Amino acid sequence: MTWPVLQDPVFATYVAGASIMILKAQFMPWLIVWRMMRAKGGFRSPEDLRRTPLNPDPNPRQLEPNERVERVRRIQQNDLESIPYFLVIGLLFLLTRPSLIVAQWLFCGYVVTRLAHFAAYLTSQTHDLRAALWTPGSLILIYMAVRTLLTAFGL
Amino acid sequence: MTWPVLQDPVFATYVAGASIMILKAQFMPWLIVWRMMRAKGGFRSPEDLRRTPLNPDPNPRQLEPNERVERVRRIQQNDLESIPYFLVIGLLFLLTRPSLIVAQWLFCGYVVTRLAHFAAYLTSQTHDLRAALWTPGSLILIYMAVRTLLTAFGL
Amino acid sequence: MTWPVLQDPVFATYVAGASIMILKAQFMPWLIVWRMMRAKGGFRSPEDLRRTPLNPDPNPRQLEPNERVERVRRIQQNDLESIPYFLVIGLLFLLTRPSLIVAQWLFCGYVVTRLAHFAAYLTSQTHDLRAALWTPGSLILIYMAVRTLLTAFGL
Repeated sequence: MTWPVLQDPVFATYVAGASIMILKAQFMPWLIVWRMMRAKGGFRSPEDLRRTPLNPDPNPRQLEPNERVERVRRIQQNDLESIPYFLVIGLLFLLTRPSLIVAQWLFCGYVVTRLAHFAAYLTSQTHDLRAALWTPGSLILIYMAVRTLLTAFGL
Repeated sequence: MTWPVLQDPVFATYVAGASIMILKAQFMPWLIVWRMMRAKGGFRSPEDLRRTPLNPDPNPRQLEPNERVERVRRIQQNDLESIPYFLVIGLLFLLTRPSLIVAQWLFCGYVVTRLAHFAAYLTSQTHDLRAALWTPGSLILIYMAVRTLLTAFGL
Repeated sequence: MTWPVLQDPVFATYVAGASIMILKAQFMPWLIVWRMMRAKGGFRSPEDLRRTPLNPDPNPRQLEPNERVERVRRIQQNDLESIPYFLVIGLLFLLTRPSLIVAQWLFCGYVVTRLAHFAAYLTSQTHDLRAALWTPGSLILIYMAVRTLLTAFGL
């Protein structure tokens, strides 16, 4: 049996969106590890040049930036600049009692455009396309924050 | 109609403070975009040198760090190191049933000193002033976390 | 008097774990400040080279990266890539009504392995040991997110 609050479809929509974004975010470090192992490089700490089972043949060039690794690090940083704020403002926005259709558009819109932004960034699409896919998520965050702020002031 | 919990002024103070900090944080990427467009540089991905409507005249120097852009990136990073933790501990701290006056001092103190820290950082004030404006926010976080931890242990 | 919800030991376990991780995270900037003051360097903003009471004898080399400072910055970044997500998914995971023993294993497992990861990173242990201590926390996050997502869909 789950908590009754999850039987509210608006709340369940938020919880689903939040869980998906956290899974997406936690996929990034694994992708970084995968690319570091493939490249045998892109490391950042001096001790990573020690000979170990995971790095049997160390080499000082392993500490140089590797573009395939750095790309995922930039994507991960882009996530950090947005997802934690989405997770909190999405929850607080529920206090404004949005209708189900509004909640679905906002939460699904955020999740879908963030996943599309990830795909565009990973495959090195143009800055213009990346910007077009980043903007809706940011506007959704701003809308939810303004709406929540007004509600907190009883407006 | 809003949720009854928002009629609790302590809770409403938290929600207002959290919304303001999220709006502040989401303003940073727009400020970075604005400064990158003004400088026509400060980009970070190789594909940003492609000729596109938003970058009609690409130039390899566009990938070099631009101090006006990097400054806002440092401010954004400083936000990431503090605001997400504030958002969560502020919510959990409500479980300790703080008085309204204590909640107002803590939440407003955090918001006001963070905004002042932003102004000082953006205008290149001394490290000493920046440190003086950063410290209260950090102490407020630590106080709320210790208080919440003690409450969780029934102390 | 505290909120009745804290009398639920599963919820109290989450609140304790979250508070500890926030305290840990907020300790990082103070450690960075401490190491910058010891090294009289590792600064990042041009204005940090001004003569002030905290920096009476400025020197351009103070803006060069200092490995002892950069190490804590890397640790802090590693925290940012994990702890905010833990704080939110831990809370939402409570909606799946985990048993106390499961909640204790997950929350304590996360906290203990993150603290051990910190100790290993700070003392420059091998990449292999760091990876072994990082992996449980990431798997705990992924497990909680999948479980929460399934519950949101009524599965």
